[in-house]
Amino acid sequence: MEESIKEYLEERKSVIDNYLNIALEKIREDSPLYAAINYSLMAGGKRLRPIMLIATYESNFEDYEVVLPFAASVEMIHTYSLIHDDLPILDNSDYRRGKPTCHKIYGSDMALLAGDALISLAFEIISSRKLLEHFEAKFLLRIVHDFAELSGAKGLVGGQVMDMVTMDMDEIDENLILYIEKRKTASLFILSVRVGAILSGVSEDELANLTKFAENFGISYQIQDDILDETSTVEELGKDVHQDRKNKKATFVSLYGLDRSKVLAKEYIEKANSYLIAYSGKYKLLENIAKFTLERIK
Amino acid sequence: MEESIKEYLEERKSVIDNYLNIALEKIREDSPLYAAINYSLMAGGKRLRPIMLIATYESNFEDYEVVLPFAASVEMIHTYSLIHDDLPILDNSDYRRGKPTCHKIYGSDMALLAGDALISLAFEIISSRKLLEHFEAKFLLRIVHDFAELSGAKGLVGGQVMDMVTMDMDEIDENLILYIEKRKTASLFILSVRVGAILSGVSEDELANLTKFAENFGISYQIQDDILDETSTVEELGKDVHQDRKNKKATFVSLYGLDRSKVLAKEYIEKANSYLIAYSGKYKLLENIAKFTLERIK
Repeated sequence: MEESIKEYLEERKSVIDNYLNIALEKIREDSPLYAAINYSLMAGGKRLRPIMLIATYESNFEDYEVVLPFAASVEMIHTYSLIHDDLPILDNSDYRRGKPTCHKIYGSDMALLAGDALISLAFEIISSRKLLEHFEAKFLLRIVHDFAELSGAKGLVGGQVMDMVTMDMDEIDENLILYIEKRKTASLFILSVRVGAILSGVSEDELANLTKFAENFGISYQIQDDILDETSTVEELGKDVHQDRKNKKATFVSLYGLDRSKVLAKEYIEKANSYLIAYSGKYKLLENIAKFTLERIK
Repeated sequence: MEESIKEYLEERKSVIDNYLNIALEKIREDSPLYAAINYSLMAGGKRLRPIMLIATYESNFEDYEVVLPFAASVEMIHTYSLIHDDLPILDNSDYRRGKPTCHKIYGSDMALLAGDALISLAFEIISSRKLLEHFEAKFLLRIVHDFAELSGAKGLVGGQVMDMVTMDMDEIDENLILYIEKRKTASLFILSVRVGAILSGVSEDELANLTKFAENFGISYQIQDDILDETSTVEELGKDVHQDRKNKKATFVSLYGLDRSKVLAKEYIEKANSYLIAYSGKYKLLENIAKFTLERIK
């Protein structure tokens, strides 16, 4: 399995990279913005979120090219949030994906606006009239709503805010950390899997189960990220390490230590998979991606 | 006319303010974000953009309550752009609408995230399933697309970027200034009028003429803003003045001086009105709002 899933991830990543390149052509004429956006968007991410969107759709239909605009848009939202989070006024990170962060190259002003423009570009792509050739308008509108809700105050940004205001806080409990990790990290995995599922026209029940899978996978993924932040070097990770400790962030690692966090990461991925049992192997691809992704935890 | 248009503006402003208050309830539970968003969104803006959206719709239909979600969303996009523009990493403004700017009260980190959350909230509101009771999904999808396009790299953010990169530039010409003012300022007037028109189901021809009206009104409005920046005090304007000169911004005032700029502002509003002639007074309300708004230029 491992070899084939690795190939799958590489193939889909390359298709997504190509699509993102083409999508950026839309704004190439506005050159200063284009350079900063292109730098961050094409900085070599694993494209895990868009791949999970594609994989969810592929578990239902063969021809996944039609969902590439949505996959690209999720990656744009992800990239905008990284650019803004890395700014000196937030996490003040110098490295990301093994390269200097956007503001280190283009300045904080340009990085701020590149992030802003990426949000709009994501919504522009998922509301394109051309998509009506493949999908009904009411499905597309629901997807716009999911993008908006999961990227905003109740999702991604909400998690980021709580992450920020709980720094230095003395009384941190598991519920608070879960609140943060669900929003900050799980939101975009939830979005990806939900969009793949909505476009596949699955039942509301199946959509709900896939949502729970993505939520628990996202928490597991974030625990892994916190563990790696504590145990890796800049070279291994391609971004600043020990950021959580430096910034006194509320994480599972700061609350329970490394060993218990590793156990929890595994428990969450098992919980995630439990929501897929009812579908007798239909979503084996999602399970395999999750397993492969989380194997970095030793 | 003047008295009645003034009353009209006050009445609609109060309806919009009420609606915005209710819309913010959606995120009240995320309290740190709510406070910063509420502070900036309810800081006493004139609500000119949402009023123009409503006025466009009202020129076609009586019951304008159904377009309030869209009007509120335009104001959210406007407010997000003000919060981000005012940040120390961009314009570094201390006052806005007569009060300290968002980051002066809540910090740059919170202001950044409050702006980000407002973008998502705007898209969340305009893609709400409840809107399908009044409008077709394909109209709503088109409106999402207009919001995305006009707020992004080809609109609002594109203008802001060019505004920034042309500071200190020696060779500024009218085309460059027009490029900036069309995007930075006219974009949201265009969006407002277009959304009001699309929801009214007008013909593509009428939509195109209304778009040109809004574009030329927006340019005139921005010239007025540049004139007032040069000729007003902080007390009169409620925000920092002489910012353009301080930041060496490319404006009509810096290129042509005050007198010629006043003439140009009037020429643009006349040009704007010319696009409404074919509709024999149907859009008199828009014309009157434009006239009243621009009378601050003496």
